[in-house]
This record gives sequence, C-alpha cells and structure tokens, in this order.
Amino acid sequence: MRRSRAFIPTTKEVPSDATLPSHQFLVRGGFINQQGAGLYNFMPLGKIVLEKIRKIVKEELDKAGCNEVQLSFVTPISLWDKSGRSDTMGKEMLRIQDRHQNDFVLSPTNEEAMVELVKNRVTSYKDLPVNLYQINTKFRDEARPRYGILRGREFLMKDGYSFHSSKEDMIREFNLMQETYKKIFTRLGLDFRVVDADSGAIGGTGSKEIHVLANSGEDTIVVCDTCDYGANIETIFEDEAQVDAYNEKSYEELTKLELEQKCSCGSSLSFKKGIEVGHIFQLGTTYTSALEANFSDENGKPKPFEMGTYGIGVSRLVASVIEQNHDENGCIWTKETAPYTVNIMVSNIKDEAQVTLGEELYLKLLGENVEVMFDDRKERFGFKMKDAELIGFPYTVIIGKELANGLVQIYDRKTTEKTSVKTGDVFSTIMELI
Amino acid sequence: MRRSRAFIPTTKEVPSDATLPSHQFLVRGGFINQQGAGLYNFMPLGKIVLEKIRKIVKEELDKAGCNEVQLSFVTPISLWDKSGRSDTMGKEMLRIQDRHQNDFVLSPTNEEAMVELVKNRVTSYKDLPVNLYQINTKFRDEARPRYGILRGREFLMKDGYSFHSSKEDMIREFNLMQETYKKIFTRLGLDFRVVDADSGAIGGTGSKEIHVLANSGEDTIVVCDTCDYGANIETIFEDEAQVDAYNEKSYEELTKLELEQKCSCGSSLSFKKGIEVGHIFQLGTTYTSALEANFSDENGKPKPFEMGTYGIGVSRLVASVIEQNHDENGCIWTKETAPYTVNIMVSNIKDEAQVTLGEELYLKLLGENVEVMFDDRKERFGFKMKDAELIGFPYTVIIGKELANGLVQIYDRKTTEKTSVKTGDVFSTIMELI
Repeated sequence: MRRSRAFIPTTKEVPSDATLPSHQFLVRGGFINQQGAGLYNFMPLGKIVLEKIRKIVKEELDKAGCNEVQLSFVTPISLWDKSGRSDTMGKEMLRIQDRHQNDFVLSPTNEEAMVELVKNRVTSYKDLPVNLYQINTKFRDEARPRYGILRGREFLMKDGYSFHSSKEDMIREFNLMQETYKKIFTRLGLDFRVVDADSGAIGGTGSKEIHVLANSGEDTIVVCDTCDYGANIETIFEDEAQVDAYNEKSYEELTKLELEQKCSCGSSLSFKKGIEVGHIFQLGTTYTSALEANFSDENGKPKPFEMGTYGIGVSRLVASVIEQNHDENGCIWTKETAPYTVNIMVSNIKDEAQVTLGEELYLKLLGENVEVMFDDRKERFGFKMKDAELIGFPYTVIIGKELANGLVQIYDRKTTEKTSVKTGDVFSTIMELI
Repeated sequence: MRRSRAFIPTTKEVPSDATLPSHQFLVRGGFINQQGAGLYNFMPLGKIVLEKIRKIVKEELDKAGCNEVQLSFVTPISLWDKSGRSDTMGKEMLRIQDRHQNDFVLSPTNEEAMVELVKNRVTSYKDLPVNLYQINTKFRDEARPRYGILRGREFLMKDGYSFHSSKEDMIREFNLMQETYKKIFTRLGLDFRVVDADSGAIGGTGSKEIHVLANSGEDTIVVCDTCDYGANIETIFEDEAQVDAYNEKSYEELTKLELEQKCSCGSSLSFKKGIEVGHIFQLGTTYTSALEANFSDENGKPKPFEMGTYGIGVSRLVASVIEQNHDENGCIWTKETAPYTVNIMVSNIKDEAQVTLGEELYLKLLGENVEVMFDDRKERFGFKMKDAELIGFPYTVIIGKELANGLVQIYDRKTTEKTSVKTGDVFSTIMELI
C-alpha cells in the first residue's frame, strides 16, 4: 500500500486515560480510537492486525476439528433464566428491551445459546463429540472500563463449546484445546504460560488460563522454573480481598508453603505478571442439565452432554502483543501480527533516483506477495522515521543519501539496528529476513 | 470434511412462519436457526456461505482502493443527537442504557461514527479521497421481522463511506462503487439490476439500489429491455401508500406515461420483483456539515467533506442466492457461494469397494484444495440423496451398484442430471466441471 493513499492517522497526542504502552501506542499509531467508555473502533491498521490474529485462531481450531458458527449477539433473556445466570451474572451482563418491551441481553458469553443450538439436533452418542466455536462480538458492561482494548466493554472473543458422551472424552478434548491454544500463541510469537485457574462465573471444575507475560498484566501467576506447573495466584486464596491483601513479598513466602506442595518437581518458583488471553474450562453437565440437553447413550438412555468451553480474547490479543513487545518509541509487532512486514521509506521524495528505486522495490515485493508499505509522503526523514518506529513495521528499507554510493539501509525494528546493503542485494536480503 | 463428523442438522420440519423458499431451505438444510424474533444463528454450513460472500465483498472493495475498519457496534446516542437522527430514525434504532444510565444505540448504520472518525484526522484536500468500509453487525428493531434472514433485526452489513474534496470526485467514486458492486454480484453468480432509488432515512440525492431478481422480492422494479435504465417503482410515487394502491396492472399503464420519458432508448420496459441487496448514495455534505467535519481546500479555506455511502446486505445475500436459485427439493448454490463444491456419496457404506473408492477420491480432491464433503454416514441412499439436494452441493459423485461395472454417477444439482462416468475418469471429470 502507498502511504500517501492510506488512512493511518498517527498522532503525538496521548489520551489522558492511557496509562499503558499498548493503549498509548495503538491510539498514537492510528490503530484504534475511542468511540465511548470501553468502546473502540479499529482503524485500517488495527483491523489488519485483528484479522491476522482471527485468521490464525480459526486455522488452528479448524485443524483441530472444530466447526465455526456465528450466534446472534442479541439473545433473549429467557435463555439466561433457564440456566439461572440472569440472576448471577450481575450488571456486567447488559439487559436491553426491544420496541415491544421484550427483554434481551448483549451476549457476554454464549454457553446457553450454544447448548440450545445442539439440543435436539445432536441426539445420539454416535454423533458426538461436537466442537463449535465463533469469533464474534461480546459485551460486558464493566463498571470501570480501562486500559484501551485490554479491558473494553465491547470486544471480539473466540468462544468455543464442546459436547461429549463421557467425561473422559471431554477431558481428551480439553487437552486437545490446550495443545491447540499453545500452537496459536506460539504462532502469534508470544511468550505465554498455561496456568491453573479459578472457574469464576462460568462454573465447572478444572480450568486453565493462558497468560501473555507482561509487566502490565493485571494477574499474578506463579510458574515453576523447570516443569510445566503454573497457577494464577487467585487459586490459592479464598477470595479477591485476600489476593489484594497480599503483596509480592508475601507471595514469596507462599512458595515455601502451599505452592511447593503443588509443584512436585522441587524446582524453584517464580512470580510473573500476566495478561489473561485464553481460558479453557471442563464444564461437565452444569449447563446441559439445567437446560435439559440430553443425548441417547449406547443403551438408549438419555444423558446430559458433558461439556467443555474455551475462550480467547481476540481483540485483547492486539494489545497484549504490544504490552509484551514495545520500546519507548512504539510498537514492535511479531512476524505474524505485523500489519505490514516491510516499510519502504524514500528519504527525499524530490530525488528521482530514490523514488525510482523505491517504486521498483515496492512493486517487486508486492509481486512476491510481501505485505509492504511504501512511504511516499512528502515529509521530512525524521518525521517518517519516527512514524515507522511508532507503527512498528518489522523492517524499514531507508533509501537515502547513501544511494549515491549504491547503498541503502535496512532498519530492524526489534534490534533497532541499521544495516547497509548494496542496492542490488536489498531485494534478496529482505526476502531472506522475512 | 467427513459428513459423519460435521454438524449439519438437516430436518424435515418447516418453521411455521417460514413462507419463503430461502427461509424454509436454510433452516431445513441446517444453515441457520432462529434464536428469537428476527435473530438468527449461522450454523457451520451457513457460516461458510456467509464468509464466502464476505470474502468476495472484501476482495473487490480492497481492489477498488477501499480500507477496511471495524467500528464499535454499541455507539453513544450523543453521536446521533449531533446529526439530528436520534429524533428521525424512529423505533428501528434501538436505544439502550448502560449500568450508569448512559444512553447508547445498537448501530443500525454508521454515518455519524464514520464522520467522527475522519474528522480532525483527515485535514487537508491532499489527503482526500478516503473510502472506509466495515463488514459488521447491525441492528434494526423492525416492527415485524420476517422472511428469516431476509428481514431480520440483527444482520451482517457492509457499510462503506467515502470522503471527498469536491462533488465531482464524490460522483467519480460513486460510479466506481457502482462498477465494484457489479463485479461483486457478478462473481456471486447472481442475476441483478442496478436501479434508480429513493434515498429514504439516509438522506442525500442520487441513490441507486442493486436488486437480485426473485419472485419473492418485496420491491417492484422497472427495467428497460434494451438499455441500462432501471428504477425502483417507489421513485415515481409520492409515498408508500400510493405504491401499495397500485397493482401490477396499473404499473403497466405507467410505462406509457412517466416511465417512458425517463428511459430514452425507446425500447419496451418490464416489471420485475427484486430483493434489495445493495444501496449506494451520493450524500453530499448533509452529515459533514451537521457534524462540522471540515478539511482545508487548496486556498486553506475550511470546507465540509463531500460524502458518499455504500451498503451491501451481506447476510441477506445468503438468502437472496437461494431465493433466486432453488427448486422444490432445496438449495442450488452458485459456484462461488456453495459451502462445498463436491459431495461424495457412498451408496452402501458396507460395500468395501465403494468406501475405498470414496476415500481415494475424497483425499485426491482434498489434495487439490477442492472443497469436498464425504458423505460416509450409515444411512439409506434415498435419505442421503434427499439431503444432498436439500443442501444443494453443485456436484454429487454417487458411488453405487454400477461400480461393479466400473462406473459411478455425477449428479449436477442445477440441471438435476446424472451422468455415468468411468471410475478412472471421475477425478478428471470433476476437475473440469468445477
């Protein structure tokens, strides 16, 4: 894409409520903008990143045998009455009334709707297991929405639901989803941990969270330095007040007590800050019993489905990538999440030789399906360079004065190093790097 | 995909309110199911079709230089106060209150939000034109939602908005969008007409609708049998009551009066029924003036943007394809909209030779990236054949008794013809057909 024709409104202004790097840089880099409290628009660059993440999530889930669906976002309250959650979900579940004064909900999650979808449509053990998911808008009316798209009210979530004829099969699927999640977060280029978790309002037993490690994370997790053991610190306290009462120093004392018993390998434990980006639950029959969703077993006897549920915060991941990958100048996108991989910057747009080389390289990379931005704007070099750092293109080809000596520079956003390359080698060098 | 592992709950039951073929067949074929009045879920097959349509819409818009964004679905009422539409939109625009009693709207369209997005971010004539679009959930609280996903309350819409420094440039873009829409609907395999239209609640002058021709269409359009002229019959009446008062016979009298003057080519005019699937508007400065969205022109003088707006009913298109393409037995998907192109049906699942050939062909087609379903269920031939007709796979390979003579049959859903093919030729024949 030619930058002169793109809508990427970068700005120096930081929103007054933006305390986190991802919030600041995503707004300043022209990725997102605020529509209202906890409501955000994705501008072109933000939408590209969001779709890249969505695509990876979909690909890995489809490979694991899941089927994508799309449920209505507005759901009748009657669904939530049946499960009892219209009483227990509290004010985060926003109730609305239509023109006929009928009651609905802006879906904060979709266990009930998904159970109703499968009920009477999957009737025999022979048709099980079934794993359905959607990547769709959710709304949770947070009392204090904050941190930009990390804790917004409207957000994009992958919510998956599986149905089984036995607990064993549900656990098998739970483990498969855990492995699938690991593939997803690995592909996204993230440093993450899978930890034991509290099941909260969703219910069920045996749940795990996936945390992206970042200093700004709201959660404290404890992980073993050797084995796979990890836990959200919440799991070892009775309630949230108790969690809050502890400080990091007190956590350390816990390692010698409860925690060391949980991790059997005897290695040392570390405390880390994490952003929850995934949560998987062994739900059992809580919802299917309440909603009378049964199948016929081998003996023709009706039984409620065993159920699992699996979430990923898709829009939250956009911010999580940046919380983990940034410096003081802006975003550092990972390979799979970068909105464009290569940025070609012509230092002096009035220099015909520079423009010609830029055009040539741009078209050649496009021809190889490289996602490339061509910064052809009539702006100063310093301005364009700051812009490139803020947006976070992994590689920027700088075509400047050194062209007279047959050289251009390749700037690596992650290492911030500039390497001089002969003009004849720049294409092949880029193709090797990406 | 193996049918035995797919979630495609076909059924003989027709919903009591389903009067239209698309409503009946999409529910019966396991594409969609109803969640509430005017609220529908897309099950796996329906989701695949929806995404195919979304992809084509996106590809053609991107080629035409549009940029995809994603706006918050929940929008503050204050936006609508500024434009005056909080008063004029009526009950179709559903108002909601959050936990703090602040007022919001479930977006029925997004002119205001898009103007606010561009305002103060595009400041100079040099940065124009800009064309932004999204493919996102919309909600219109219809008094009488009906016809399944043809007139639901929650639906998926492509809404695009362009901004210009002059009326001429806006008209150029309007014409470009008209051509782009023609490409989209042609790729979708639809018989459609572009006609003059009323601008309705959106406002502006000079608007055109795109109609998919279908007997069940709610609109009557008149089209010239020779030239490009076409108009929604609404455009020649003062109000809707007048439209209703006319019957088809009276329309015909009109051809000799007002209409013949509008179409200059002197050829005969025909009346047709159409489903509105697209609407493009030359908006002018109505919204940008009201919202004080200005740019600096060549002389540094502030001017409101000239604006165009362009909609496509993406989820409505799923039903429109079927309204135009079906028979008494079910759906007939077009090439680009079919959820799977080829269905392989093993007539007798206990016949090892049949299963072996089915498996072989399935894997071979998968290897060529053909979208193929393998109906490996232990069901009777007649049941599986009815199912294939209902779902509407373009081609079904029937592996049956004739296999003993080295023959299989290829069933063409559109022509309903069966052709015998030697087993050695079936792969190449399929590859030629699709």
